[in-house]
Amino acid sequence: MNPQSDLICISNQAYGSFNDRGLQFGEGLFETFRLNSKGEIPLWSFHQARLKEGLQRLGFNPKSFDKAQDFLFANIQSNLTSNPALNAGKLLVTRDAQKRGYATSQENEPNLLLQLFSAPNWPDESQGLKVGISDIRLGIQPALAGIKHCNRLEQVLAQSQLKEGEDDALLLSYAGDVIESCTSNLLVCLDNQWFTPKLDKAGVKGVARQWLITKMNIAEANLNLSDLYNAQHLYLSNSLGGLRPISMLWAERTKEYDSCSSLQEYQTEFKSLFA
Amino acid sequence: MNPQSDLICISNQAYGSFNDRGLQFGEGLFETFRLNSKGEIPLWSFHQARLKEGLQRLGFNPKSFDKAQDFLFANIQSNLTSNPALNAGKLLVTRDAQKRGYATSQENEPNLLLQLFSAPNWPDESQGLKVGISDIRLGIQPALAGIKHCNRLEQVLAQSQLKEGEDDALLLSYAGDVIESCTSNLLVCLDNQWFTPKLDKAGVKGVARQWLITKMNIAEANLNLSDLYNAQHLYLSNSLGGLRPISMLWAERTKEYDSCSSLQEYQTEFKSLFA
Repeated sequence: MNPQSDLICISNQAYGSFNDRGLQFGEGLFETFRLNSKGEIPLWSFHQARLKEGLQRLGFNPKSFDKAQDFLFANIQSNLTSNPALNAGKLLVTRDAQKRGYATSQENEPNLLLQLFSAPNWPDESQGLKVGISDIRLGIQPALAGIKHCNRLEQVLAQSQLKEGEDDALLLSYAGDVIESCTSNLLVCLDNQWFTPKLDKAGVKGVARQWLITKMNIAEANLNLSDLYNAQHLYLSNSLGGLRPISMLWAERTKEYDSCSSLQEYQTEFKSLFA
Repeated sequence: MNPQSDLICISNQAYGSFNDRGLQFGEGLFETFRLNSKGEIPLWSFHQARLKEGLQRLGFNPKSFDKAQDFLFANIQSNLTSNPALNAGKLLVTRDAQKRGYATSQENEPNLLLQLFSAPNWPDESQGLKVGISDIRLGIQPALAGIKHCNRLEQVLAQSQLKEGEDDALLLSYAGDVIESCTSNLLVCLDNQWFTPKLDKAGVKGVARQWLITKMNIAEANLNLSDLYNAQHLYLSNSLGGLRPISMLWAERTKEYDSCSSLQEYQTEFKSLFA
């Protein structure tokens, strides 16, 4: 597949401005999603909830969500018929500046960018992940926690500092809580009860995590490193990669984990959403 | 002055890409500066030091600094002769992505954007500022502290939450230290000794702050709110606005401050740099 057919970028008229506040300050939000064979976004209700909350927290114009959604659906429709290999996308919503400086305005129109691409193949779930602990810790910021905003330097630095042999790394907050990995949310099975980090001070509420919470009994909790060493199973969840077991926590103290047979039905159900 | 002559944007060839990681993740750095009447950047040595450190910390290609500097100087030269009213600028250095996702690469070429504009008039220094305390606190992040990176949502939120009557607001970190204001660094006079917050965990090392440190005896220290209430004088420093006295800390407990006669010479010297 050549690069042209592998990635399509579509923007609204306002896009590409040098005054884009996404470019200047990372002032924007994004959603990355898989499509099913009909070009639908099966988990859109979860993406929608997060995007709406993000737009509201960043003080976007209340009409921005509808404009973004209309733009998204219209452009998926018009592009996928010509190229069905494009089965995943990223929607970026930023806004233009009316003047220089940090002060922003609800008047600013949303700038919209859609990238359509081929999703990575579903990973082999029998292969557990070898996961380290990142030296990068996440700053505490309740005003930005949970939403998928474009200030992602912490994740970029953590990703760039992955050690050889690590598939991913867990990120702790400066308060010592385990939050997530560079790219995924974390699920922890402790004494037959599933937990996932409470993301009210740092981290992103991934849509696969949110979907799982509606499916099985998972408690949101403050978890620390000892909880991970006491756990029976660890999993990572991600909207593009689904649910994957961690086979080894690879840190100063190493621990191996088995995969959990009771999670197989959710792995299968998650993938079947995108058939 | 019409908008066209008030702002010029120049970019290198790579600019405006939808794969720009500045746009996607706020992965970039910027410098905002005043020019003197010859089109020089009098404080360039300070900008240069901060930009170099930022590029290094974000893992940019080692050649990025020279490319950015050459681009900057060449474009100031070619644009200012035709429009001498443009006496300030902002240089933005981001980089392009070779593939999707957080993983970055030193191979990525820098994307360069220069905006030239008319600096705001020097403020009236006899008018002290009325400054509040922001409800937004800054996350602790030593990996990003001090440099002027493009993940600026905390400042955008704080600026958008300024209360009526506030000229600016001070930002504390989640550790309780006073860090800076939305747009400026803070100087605190306690018992005839000047202090400025140590910016090793949060905040931006402004060039006016760095210049002042070379001129007068200022100690970098961890400062908290009680230090501000015990202080005799508070000042804000900013590369575009120079040195300005705070006349009132306007919070639950209000305190008024006099300006300090011994700082006048530095206010004057700072402005004279840009003559």
